[in-house]
Amino acid sequence: MNVDYENLKTYAIKLLGERGVTLTDIANITYELQIKYYNNLTIEECLENVKQVLCKREVMFTVITGITIDKLAESGAIEEPLRSILLDDYSLYGIDEVLAYSIVNIYGSIGLTNFGYVDKVKLGKIGEIDRLGKNSGVCNTFLDDIIGAIASAAASRIAHAR
Amino acid sequence: MNVDYENLKTYAIKLLGERGVTLTDIANITYELQIKYYNNLTIEECLENVKQVLCKREVMFTVITGITIDKLAESGAIEEPLRSILLDDYSLYGIDEVLAYSIVNIYGSIGLTNFGYVDKVKLGKIGEIDRLGKNSGVCNTFLDDIIGAIASAAASRIAHAR
Amino acid sequence: MNVDYENLKTYAIKLLGERGVTLTDIANITYELQIKYYNNLTIEECLENVKQVLCKREVMFTVITGITIDKLAESGAIEEPLRSILLDDYSLYGIDEVLAYSIVNIYGSIGLTNFGYVDKVKLGKIGEIDRLGKNSGVCNTFLDDIIGAIASAAASRIAHAR
Amino acid sequence: MNVDYENLKTYAIKLLGERGVTLTDIANITYELQIKYYNNLTIEECLENVKQVLCKREVMFTVITGITIDKLAESGAIEEPLRSILLDDYSLYGIDEVLAYSIVNIYGSIGLTNFGYVDKVKLGKIGEIDRLGKNSGVCNTFLDDIIGAIASAAASRIAHAR
Repeated sequence: MNVDYENLKTYAIKLLGERGVTLTDIANITYELQIKYYNNLTIEECLENVKQVLCKREVMFTVITGITIDKLAESGAIEEPLRSILLDDYSLYGIDEVLAYSIVNIYGSIGLTNFGYVDKVKLGKIGEIDRLGKNSGVCNTFLDDIIGAIASAAASRIAHAR
Repeated sequence: MNVDYENLKTYAIKLLGERGVTLTDIANITYELQIKYYNNLTIEECLENVKQVLCKREVMFTVITGITIDKLAESGAIEEPLRSILLDDYSLYGIDEVLAYSIVNIYGSIGLTNFGYVDKVKLGKIGEIDRLGKNSGVCNTFLDDIIGAIASAAASRIAHAR
Repeated sequence: MNVDYENLKTYAIKLLGERGVTLTDIANITYELQIKYYNNLTIEECLENVKQVLCKREVMFTVITGITIDKLAESGAIEEPLRSILLDDYSLYGIDEVLAYSIVNIYGSIGLTNFGYVDKVKLGKIGEIDRLGKNSGVCNTFLDDIIGAIASAAASRIAHAR
Repeated sequence: MNVDYENLKTYAIKLLGERGVTLTDIANITYELQIKYYNNLTIEECLENVKQVLCKREVMFTVITGITIDKLAESGAIEEPLRSILLDDYSLYGIDEVLAYSIVNIYGSIGLTNFGYVDKVKLGKIGEIDRLGKNSGVCNTFLDDIIGAIASAAASRIAHAR
């Protein structure tokens, strides 16, 4: 099987957009995480690093798989009890964190701390996505963790490069 | 949200059964892995340990999520290009291994080696499931890794108990 | 080889004590993490869960290995350049987070977020340990992550039990 | 703190050499793993990929930390009971697999299966290192897992590139 990764990346970014998330939204989270360490950091540098993270195949596959599950929970294609677990963003489910961790870990373990932090304090767009997910019929269970993971991976990438 | 874990376990076992996998199939893999170390090991002891692994919440959630994705790839509910990636069990996809690892890791890192081994040599039922998955329209991308992961987790459980 | 795990646990707790950390210090972090979710939570319940986490073999091994490395960095038994990397708690080292993650993960991925959070904001004793580690000749590189990991694992254990 | 990563890589390779392992030994394991998939694969391509894996910071840190622990167990600088656990390569210790996994995972989860397999069947140099480690006073507890992890990471790198 041949996978066209340029198309796959475009598709992953399209899915993020459909769910209301731009790469700049993610770059803003990275910026918040790293500005205290590098006072000459710019949003542009964060955005460039977010784009580089999205070039990793495992990241594309995680984004596409996670958002697909969220959408199928909304559409009703996923049967009970999993559907309700996903729609409720049930706190002990944990598979969303498992997928997110696979993104973070590609840039080594140092991103783990950032991921946990942004996920807990619901930094920037993560908080908005999380709140939207509480509306009836909306499922952002995987999306908020994926955004936090990409932002944290980009932060690790910046830390390694400087 | 209250999740009835007794029902959830029953549902996970039912899904495995629908996909052609009994707990004894999994116990047989555990037995093959561990008989060289414990010559008084029985299938019954392996089966009991497989059942205990299935009592862990993260294991139930992983089984249900993975098999649900396999089924949705078959039914056509998952859109392209992810559908073809899943139906072809594309070797660089990797999310199946990510989910499997979350099962293995609950019993510590020692299960990792067993998981890699059974996945590579396609021990017992894993080989059968893998071959079935190559038929047109059948998707066992997550199922074979999940079986290997449960069998390896049960092997770790036995190693810790003896 | 036979390992006496009762002795091993006692040894792990003794090492934590030598480095200035009591199980109650760890329980206090767990309490801070979970009191917002369970308003009838007590320090005693947190302490009991911390003790249960320390009964897991992989946890004991991680505590003992991590603190041993910290001590050997201080004593000079570890040669350069690793010694300076450890004494400086170099931010890109990452092996401390790797070990910590092995503790957290035994209770599933839900602890990941708590670990990242306490590590970032340096909650309670973690902040004190981190500051002490900045003194010349003192190495707490593994210790602070280990404490955060045990506290987060205990928080996961409470979440699963309630 | 500034770390000279060119020096650090040289030091990691020197430590491997002191413990009897050349990069070609590792490349040979990668070759055995991948030749069945790519019949025009050469040892040179494997060696080049092994070298690239060793350019990753987390890999260098893992190699240096693991081999340092092995050497300190031999020298007597590590106190009991950890010393005996390391010298005996105690099967439930697990921290060696945890460190190895941090190497494998940088190239995504697909390397996990290869790592488990080579670790189980003790492919090539891994078997030799493992046997040497059984001699009195010799500790290769971390070394054999590290070699398997680098070889598996290089195999993942080849799979991603082709």
